[in-house]
Amino acid sequence: MTPTTRADCVELDRTDPLAAFREEFVLPEGVVYLDGNSLGALPRATPGRVADMIEREWGRDLIASWNTAGWWDKPRTLGAKIAPLVGADPDEVVVGDGTSTNLFKALVAALRMSDRDIVLGESGNFPTDLYVTEGAARLTGAVQRRVDPDGPELAAALATGDVAVLLLSHVDYRSGTLRDLPAITRMAHEHGALVVWDLCHSVGAVPIELSRSGADFAVGCTYKYLNAGPGAPAFLYAARRHHAVADQPLSGWHGHANPFDFAPEYEPAPGVSRFLSGSQPLVADAALEASLDVWAKADMAQVRVKSLAMTDLFLRITTGEEPGRRPPLRAVGRRPMVGDGWAGLESVTPLDHAHRGSQVALLQPEEGAGYPIVRALIERGVIGDFRAPDVMRFGFTPLYLRYVDVYDAATALVDVVETGEWRQERFARRAQVT
Amino acid sequence: MTPTTRADCVELDRTDPLAAFREEFVLPEGVVYLDGNSLGALPRATPGRVADMIEREWGRDLIASWNTAGWWDKPRTLGAKIAPLVGADPDEVVVGDGTSTNLFKALVAALRMSDRDIVLGESGNFPTDLYVTEGAARLTGAVQRRVDPDGPELAAALATGDVAVLLLSHVDYRSGTLRDLPAITRMAHEHGALVVWDLCHSVGAVPIELSRSGADFAVGCTYKYLNAGPGAPAFLYAARRHHAVADQPLSGWHGHANPFDFAPEYEPAPGVSRFLSGSQPLVADAALEASLDVWAKADMAQVRVKSLAMTDLFLRITTGEEPGRRPPLRAVGRRPMVGDGWAGLESVTPLDHAHRGSQVALLQPEEGAGYPIVRALIERGVIGDFRAPDVMRFGFTPLYLRYVDVYDAATALVDVVETGEWRQERFARRAQVT
Repeated sequence: MTPTTRADCVELDRTDPLAAFREEFVLPEGVVYLDGNSLGALPRATPGRVADMIEREWGRDLIASWNTAGWWDKPRTLGAKIAPLVGADPDEVVVGDGTSTNLFKALVAALRMSDRDIVLGESGNFPTDLYVTEGAARLTGAVQRRVDPDGPELAAALATGDVAVLLLSHVDYRSGTLRDLPAITRMAHEHGALVVWDLCHSVGAVPIELSRSGADFAVGCTYKYLNAGPGAPAFLYAARRHHAVADQPLSGWHGHANPFDFAPEYEPAPGVSRFLSGSQPLVADAALEASLDVWAKADMAQVRVKSLAMTDLFLRITTGEEPGRRPPLRAVGRRPMVGDGWAGLESVTPLDHAHRGSQVALLQPEEGAGYPIVRALIERGVIGDFRAPDVMRFGFTPLYLRYVDVYDAATALVDVVETGEWRQERFARRAQVT
Repeated sequence: MTPTTRADCVELDRTDPLAAFREEFVLPEGVVYLDGNSLGALPRATPGRVADMIEREWGRDLIASWNTAGWWDKPRTLGAKIAPLVGADPDEVVVGDGTSTNLFKALVAALRMSDRDIVLGESGNFPTDLYVTEGAARLTGAVQRRVDPDGPELAAALATGDVAVLLLSHVDYRSGTLRDLPAITRMAHEHGALVVWDLCHSVGAVPIELSRSGADFAVGCTYKYLNAGPGAPAFLYAARRHHAVADQPLSGWHGHANPFDFAPEYEPAPGVSRFLSGSQPLVADAALEASLDVWAKADMAQVRVKSLAMTDLFLRITTGEEPGRRPPLRAVGRRPMVGDGWAGLESVTPLDHAHRGSQVALLQPEEGAGYPIVRALIERGVIGDFRAPDVMRFGFTPLYLRYVDVYDAATALVDVVETGEWRQERFARRAQVT
């Protein structure tokens, strides 16, 4: 069914196979939360799990918990719980540190496996990917090159044959464009390049098949679609075939083959544990564990079906486009104008399903309109966010959003734009961050 | 008063100016916890503070908390709370990542400030310091050299004039030896070397004066004496005079001068924020904040007085030595024998106050005795730990230990050794980790 009315959405929610998951999350009253692509909502089990970790594991059992509560192995046991979400084997993923740090480890390890010296990245990637590449390249003598990965330049840049490592975001943080991970990985390998995937905006949002695609390395965060809490520990995937040779630079004692020998020289652990460095924040790990236990019950194929249905619905109401049919206006080189869509809104997110993650990015053609529109929507209880220079971002999280939420949010957005409500001066004043 | 009986200790506790702090911590019934140098005890305020952070800041306010709850600035506001504990200005310390990662940043930044290429470290330093130095040296083309920092080799190694960076632990993790931070810093500077101090085993244990000593960089953990929870975020200190030039390799977006410009090129922030990389685990930060609020009320001079009185007492009962008088047996080249001390125990920790941190490390001269003695003591409710090859470690935390606790622990240890209780076979069986 293609929903067109709110009643249609009520009916879709009634038969939604994922409907029960909503009860697993805490959601503020009167809010439609479309920013789970920035910070996932709180799982209902998290406060209790964290309290138990703090009061029993830490407060009562103290250092004994390094053994009895499995603290020492958390980077591996949590990694094993993330593995099915990224299509990896349980012993190919470890949890720890932040995305930036893991990216640095993966990039340097990959560069050391190649006799070439170019790191190919995307011009529009999330800044930390650009900056960390800059840092890793400087230290290793490599050179950063950037292309638009959604155009023909990617193939051309790989075809030069001098690319050591390709670093791409699986889903673009701004536009929500989903890249063809298997095809790009194959193309990179054909040209002798290794691939590091940044999964921050795709893990928990779309099905991922790292092993089957032959991906080399991947990193990702857990605080967006995975609901592990602000700044929660990140993860790193290394294909098993690279474990014996991967040589990462942050050689700390948790990555040692025999950490409790306290040996004077570093000897990397045989498996993916060699990517670990030091102790990890176990209070934060407890929150991650609680959220991964929710994800263990979710079927990613169902998540994807609902995600696409929700973004279709949102796009249809806000832009008047018929999603799934054709590329967005901007991509076909046409200047958008008010009247192009129902409310003058244009989608930056691809309309075709194969290239869409689980977020929708919209433009309103007037300069400077994005920010106040988002603020005006927030005042109505619809939380999205804004990314410079002009993008309004809306994330869709099938585990805790209903079709009626999407309908209500989309119609509120149209109303805010059509009535000119967003033009009130107070909406233009910038908050410090968001 | 030099306490010699349990009644003396009861009296000392009655007049202890720090006595009230014990109520601020959760301590398991029937346990004397002498492992706060490994994992600090749980502050009573922590569970509530973390629950509030999770349920209100994350669960209810969601992304708005990046502004309203000060999430974005946590690395700086928490750094400012650590600053007085290390003798730094509030804007010279940031919190984030782990000790190993911060060590890597500080080492590479220091190496880049020098035209020399030797990193001088300690042969017996905690392994991660050795391994991270190895990793940083390989990437930068530097060379690691190691000496015993408590012997004459340190001065000789610095005098060669080719040392770029000296990396030392302020307190040795095994022996508890305290190094003279101001004097060593001065000596290093006289020879043109920069100094990176590892404060893991000294912060919260002894007063520290980084600024006044002219220290260049320092890193430390917060989960030992600072009670922030297992694996809690670490901190990094950079002297203000280095802020404009320090160039660290993990250039992520949180270290950018204008992170919300999403600029394509990296430009480091003007202050110590340039040492930040990516998002930090805010759930763990909340636990750190709760513990630092306890520390804000503590007078480090009082902490030091009580710490020395407690380690004196413990040493007197367990080794029969008169602490504060002379160096330990091993240091004067004499082979210890049963009968040397009351229970045949020898101190590896210096007896003179100037060289003692807040822990005591003991040896029992029989090979392999250390581990089962520690296990037998744990069965009696006295928790210390064991470090290969043969050291029994006991940490003293003046905020939550009483003199009677120290008396009871010391007499229990003497009893376990004298009665031969530890020789029971079950104590020799190794647990997976400690």
